[in-house]
Amino acid sequence: MPEQSPLDLPEGDPFGPHNLPYGVFTTAGEPERRRLGVRIGSHVLDAGAAAHALGSPYAGLLAQPSLNPLLAAGRTAWRDVRRALTAWVTVPAHRPDIEPLLHPLDAVTMHLPYEVADYVDFYASEHHATNVGRIFRPDGDALTPNWKHLPIGYHGRAGTVVVSGTDVVRPSGQRKTPADAAPVFGPSVKLDIEAEVGFLVGTPSPLGSPVALGDFRDHVFGTFLLNDWSARDLQAWEYVPLGPFLGKSFATSVAAWVTPLEALDAARTAPPARDVPLLPYLDDSEAEEPGGFDVRISVAINGRLVSEPPFATMYWTAAQQLAHMTVNGASLRTGDVYGSGTVSGPEVNQRGSLLELTWNGRDAFELPEGKRTFLEDGDEVTMTAWAPGPDGVRVGLGEVTGRIVPAV
Amino acid sequence: MPEQSPLDLPEGDPFGPHNLPYGVFTTAGEPERRRLGVRIGSHVLDAGAAAHALGSPYAGLLAQPSLNPLLAAGRTAWRDVRRALTAWVTVPAHRPDIEPLLHPLDAVTMHLPYEVADYVDFYASEHHATNVGRIFRPDGDALTPNWKHLPIGYHGRAGTVVVSGTDVVRPSGQRKTPADAAPVFGPSVKLDIEAEVGFLVGTPSPLGSPVALGDFRDHVFGTFLLNDWSARDLQAWEYVPLGPFLGKSFATSVAAWVTPLEALDAARTAPPARDVPLLPYLDDSEAEEPGGFDVRISVAINGRLVSEPPFATMYWTAAQQLAHMTVNGASLRTGDVYGSGTVSGPEVNQRGSLLELTWNGRDAFELPEGKRTFLEDGDEVTMTAWAPGPDGVRVGLGEVTGRIVPAV
Repeated sequence: MPEQSPLDLPEGDPFGPHNLPYGVFTTAGEPERRRLGVRIGSHVLDAGAAAHALGSPYAGLLAQPSLNPLLAAGRTAWRDVRRALTAWVTVPAHRPDIEPLLHPLDAVTMHLPYEVADYVDFYASEHHATNVGRIFRPDGDALTPNWKHLPIGYHGRAGTVVVSGTDVVRPSGQRKTPADAAPVFGPSVKLDIEAEVGFLVGTPSPLGSPVALGDFRDHVFGTFLLNDWSARDLQAWEYVPLGPFLGKSFATSVAAWVTPLEALDAARTAPPARDVPLLPYLDDSEAEEPGGFDVRISVAINGRLVSEPPFATMYWTAAQQLAHMTVNGASLRTGDVYGSGTVSGPEVNQRGSLLELTWNGRDAFELPEGKRTFLEDGDEVTMTAWAPGPDGVRVGLGEVTGRIVPAV
Repeated sequence: MPEQSPLDLPEGDPFGPHNLPYGVFTTAGEPERRRLGVRIGSHVLDAGAAAHALGSPYAGLLAQPSLNPLLAAGRTAWRDVRRALTAWVTVPAHRPDIEPLLHPLDAVTMHLPYEVADYVDFYASEHHATNVGRIFRPDGDALTPNWKHLPIGYHGRAGTVVVSGTDVVRPSGQRKTPADAAPVFGPSVKLDIEAEVGFLVGTPSPLGSPVALGDFRDHVFGTFLLNDWSARDLQAWEYVPLGPFLGKSFATSVAAWVTPLEALDAARTAPPARDVPLLPYLDDSEAEEPGGFDVRISVAINGRLVSEPPFATMYWTAAQQLAHMTVNGASLRTGDVYGSGTVSGPEVNQRGSLLELTWNGRDAFELPEGKRTFLEDGDEVTMTAWAPGPDGVRVGLGEVTGRIVPAV
């Protein structure tokens, strides 16, 4: 019996040729040489080496230690490179060239695949914002007056965006409960997750030029899972009036794989009906394509499923967020990353943060390791996701995982 | 009479050999070749060319298009390079080599001298925070409960940090006054300034390792003036609950010159007495050197002096801000920039924003061009500053200037 080719994937493999996410890897033999790779099944194709082997004109974009040159090359290049890659992994005549360039995923180390320019995080799930409002402002309106008029966002720390698999050191800082006379210092006792979908900007835009709603695909290269780790006790004490700072800036984990937007064409879906009229720059009622993505997220702690946040329920879309972020003339840079904000659905088991799942620690849940309200040292959080693809095949998004290690 | 050397400076020149700020320039003849320069009097020395001419071992750090390699080289290198530069501009024997490498300031173009990694802005003047609190929350406490326990900060947009002299396009966005039933869209009608002092990080720190108060000089290379342009109407509508976003992200102007910390040794001064006990990581009562800097800022609009904010009055110091920013384990990168927050003194003519100077537009002031509450198109804002130097000589900080151009 001939040896099975890594390119002969099981039917319905969520990382088949319809997906082809990008990442950056090293091998044990050459741990310093970062290379752009494309995931196919449970292997990664050395994309630069493949381009060379096949005499492709895209070798200059693919034989790189980072995704940034391809990101900067623009939408036409993204499409053409994707077409070429699809041919390389599907056309039988290429197999002799391609197969030797495939590395099993468990034999490589994945790295942050792009250099992050600015990192912005949004707050775009109505269910999440309503839950948070009810928890923190039980006597007021759950949503602030601006919430349905604009996608609320803020800048996060780009320098602490880390790749999936990186341990997360429990942050220390100030916290103060109403019972405390003064703030106390110590490791966070309310360490939380936020299940999000991130978007990666490729094509820059000049200062002073807003990016229109319809230009989303010209600027955004792809998407990935993101865990916006949050220390709720630090955040609660610091965030009035200028927003989250140390409660978030210690780490933001992103998946090692970036899924091209084109791979999610079949997952486009209409966002929820809007309750209030939107200003023209945000009005997507006449958009050419639906602005949402039907991405189904699963959140597991120590391997146990705790939530299934549905990204399709987000009130604000990624295109609206991009239009809003630039409407004041702010420029985009290659490598800008923005997070959707915590994804929470209407059901209890669809909440994307422990803050919501446990109602700020009031309702513990059981794990085999013991009761949990927030994260304990040693806990490992893993988010996975899939979306509907062509012909009923799923599109897998790369996981984002991280383990909590004790405070220093 | 022999031609006067550019190195023969008038007595007391604030840009004498005691100062030597760094910048990046191009000449009209070679507009694409960015070079590191050091300001001496009204000239800029081509630092890389000087290092080559004198066979200096620092040519590798100085023959660069950006300050980043020198920033990354660390404190010992900073000191040694500064010593070398001081010798080059003061030792008569070097004059034949140095003089041909001096370019008049008015014959060069200055550029952003470093690549900004993360940009953080603080809120550290008690006078400013009190004024803002009184304006926006007239019925509540002027300062939020956390204000005297931690230096409040937030991340800004690194990608829209621009060098002095860059025009600022009036941003558009949503605003809503209490009288409006719904938000309206349009150019900001409350475009403001914030006079600040910025700090530039050279030496990085690893993720998970807080930087102690006493390690400030190991990480921070230098300082510069910063104008944190602010659209108050956009900001007021958007900033609850996650802080400023589009009200700030359209532009932040920084001076073209970075003053090394050593040049400000004589300007170190004790911060105001603290009203509440500080947690140990912020407690500078036993610090080896005073944490403040006696930098005197002047703010002019269209050449007319409107305010003189005294940096020495800041409640929180730059060292405290650095310690706070990293106490949760957040890493530092070479090129991280942080702003002090608006500098406002106790007197009306020491306020560092038009919001305060005009009490949110209530009290207009007169310019030859007409009444002003906030900025009009065409207005040019220029901030200059000096600090006490050795032997009673002033240390000049490079100006930061920008002109408002109409919204697109």
